[in-house]
Amino acid sequence: MEEFFKGSLLIVGLGFMGGSLAKALKKHGFNKPIYGIDINPKAVQLGKKLGVIDNGWTAYKEVPWEEIDTVILASPVGTFESIAKQLKEHIGKDTTVSDLGSTKRLVYKMEKLLGTRFVGAHPIAGTEKSGVEHSIDNLYEGKKLIITPTENTDKFHLKKVERLWKQLGANVEYMSPELHDYIFGVVSHLPHAVAFALVDTLRIMSNEEVNLFNYPGAGFKDFTRIAASDPTMWRDIFLENKDYVLEAIENFKRSLSTLEQLIKEGKKEELRKFLNEISLLRRNLD
Amino acid sequence: MEEFFKGSLLIVGLGFMGGSLAKALKKHGFNKPIYGIDINPKAVQLGKKLGVIDNGWTAYKEVPWEEIDTVILASPVGTFESIAKQLKEHIGKDTTVSDLGSTKRLVYKMEKLLGTRFVGAHPIAGTEKSGVEHSIDNLYEGKKLIITPTENTDKFHLKKVERLWKQLGANVEYMSPELHDYIFGVVSHLPHAVAFALVDTLRIMSNEEVNLFNYPGAGFKDFTRIAASDPTMWRDIFLENKDYVLEAIENFKRSLSTLEQLIKEGKKEELRKFLNEISLLRRNLD
Repeated sequence: MEEFFKGSLLIVGLGFMGGSLAKALKKHGFNKPIYGIDINPKAVQLGKKLGVIDNGWTAYKEVPWEEIDTVILASPVGTFESIAKQLKEHIGKDTTVSDLGSTKRLVYKMEKLLGTRFVGAHPIAGTEKSGVEHSIDNLYEGKKLIITPTENTDKFHLKKVERLWKQLGANVEYMSPELHDYIFGVVSHLPHAVAFALVDTLRIMSNEEVNLFNYPGAGFKDFTRIAASDPTMWRDIFLENKDYVLEAIENFKRSLSTLEQLIKEGKKEELRKFLNEISLLRRNLD
Repeated sequence: MEEFFKGSLLIVGLGFMGGSLAKALKKHGFNKPIYGIDINPKAVQLGKKLGVIDNGWTAYKEVPWEEIDTVILASPVGTFESIAKQLKEHIGKDTTVSDLGSTKRLVYKMEKLLGTRFVGAHPIAGTEKSGVEHSIDNLYEGKKLIITPTENTDKFHLKKVERLWKQLGANVEYMSPELHDYIFGVVSHLPHAVAFALVDTLRIMSNEEVNLFNYPGAGFKDFTRIAASDPTMWRDIFLENKDYVLEAIENFKRSLSTLEQLIKEGKKEELRKFLNEISLLRRNLD
């Protein structure tokens, strides 16, 4: 990676995703210093103590900017705009900026603030875990990594980001920010919204007679594991991808109403057919 | 178990659940013959070939009824009524009848047809797998087993069924058929309905440009695994527990609308609070 990476790499936001990136870089032979910055001093302390990062700070002015060649945003997407404004004050003119964000149309905002050096990227990996202390060095291996260039994105910075992820064992795929947000609005953001609503339903329907949380079957646990995800991260994703998320929720409600109607009317054969078609679609995924 | 079990045991419906019961009984020293009956000759053949059952048939008249001491219904709940009518013609007056069904108010129907010897039971175990060939001998170990007696249920038959499940390592719990159906309507039937609707949404929202099934993140896969469940079994559960399932869907739609509204209005702090409370509830489950 040396031809591309001439200086240190700074990760903004030292959580599970950012920590896992730092660990993966070290594992795959990245031989420049890896730094971290986080508003939470505990995350920085922990990152240093655990050897995830070589050094870290809580304030932008403390970072040795002259060393920094690449910056990766690994914080909730709702923080990107204010971070970009900070970065603009400090980074050198050839520094690459990229991210791990789950919504990608904010690339346009980033480009306005930081120029064509900004390369939008989204690793399709993660768990419901959060915190740098849970980070792992193989999170991105064999996983999809989606890069969402615009027509302005600088080719050198684009290649550099692609190179970084290939080195970590990710399968790089390109698509437009719009298509990305449509797809992940349905296959990722919608399931999270549904999982949150499902856990809330147990709360609503518990009463003096029964605490429904005492009866979590395996299906329910698997199903709602993602509802334990970081609330700020998901708040930001839902708001950044609002239009597509709401469109996905509308369509989901339509599917649920179809099922509800078939149950209500007791249409045995139609209901079996509907469930059977879906069951086959799902079985084809494994 | 010998004091209770004086003859052979017949499993009606040789699928994953029934096959796993037969295997568990053998593993835990049940030393009487275990028989199976299924309308599908392949299931019977396979059950015999794999040694899951000692003998099996497709027609009620072929069963050696004089030997049968216990009958366990392991077919979709929608078949119970017609099976009970068949059993009534054949079984001896002291034969215990129980089941593995996921809805329990049908105990009242069973009692009318078969008398107080019917004991409703529901093992809280299972996967999205179906078919006797996938059955396993430890499915019920350490799992909840809910018995739902009515005020009429015969004490001897009740004890016998309890004894059977304790022997297999299940944790026996008692509750009314009504409470059972309320609880599992929310914690099991609702999540299945939601998973089916979610997979359907991917179908609806796929178009010429993108096949959304090509982007199944880990979250989506975990989340919708249960949508691969047996469609007939689930059709019957939804219809048998219709009122509680519809009530759960209504409440779920309310929770989803709350979330939708918070996203739509962009209420950042309220949205974070809502997600945070849910995330904490879910984290407490692990």
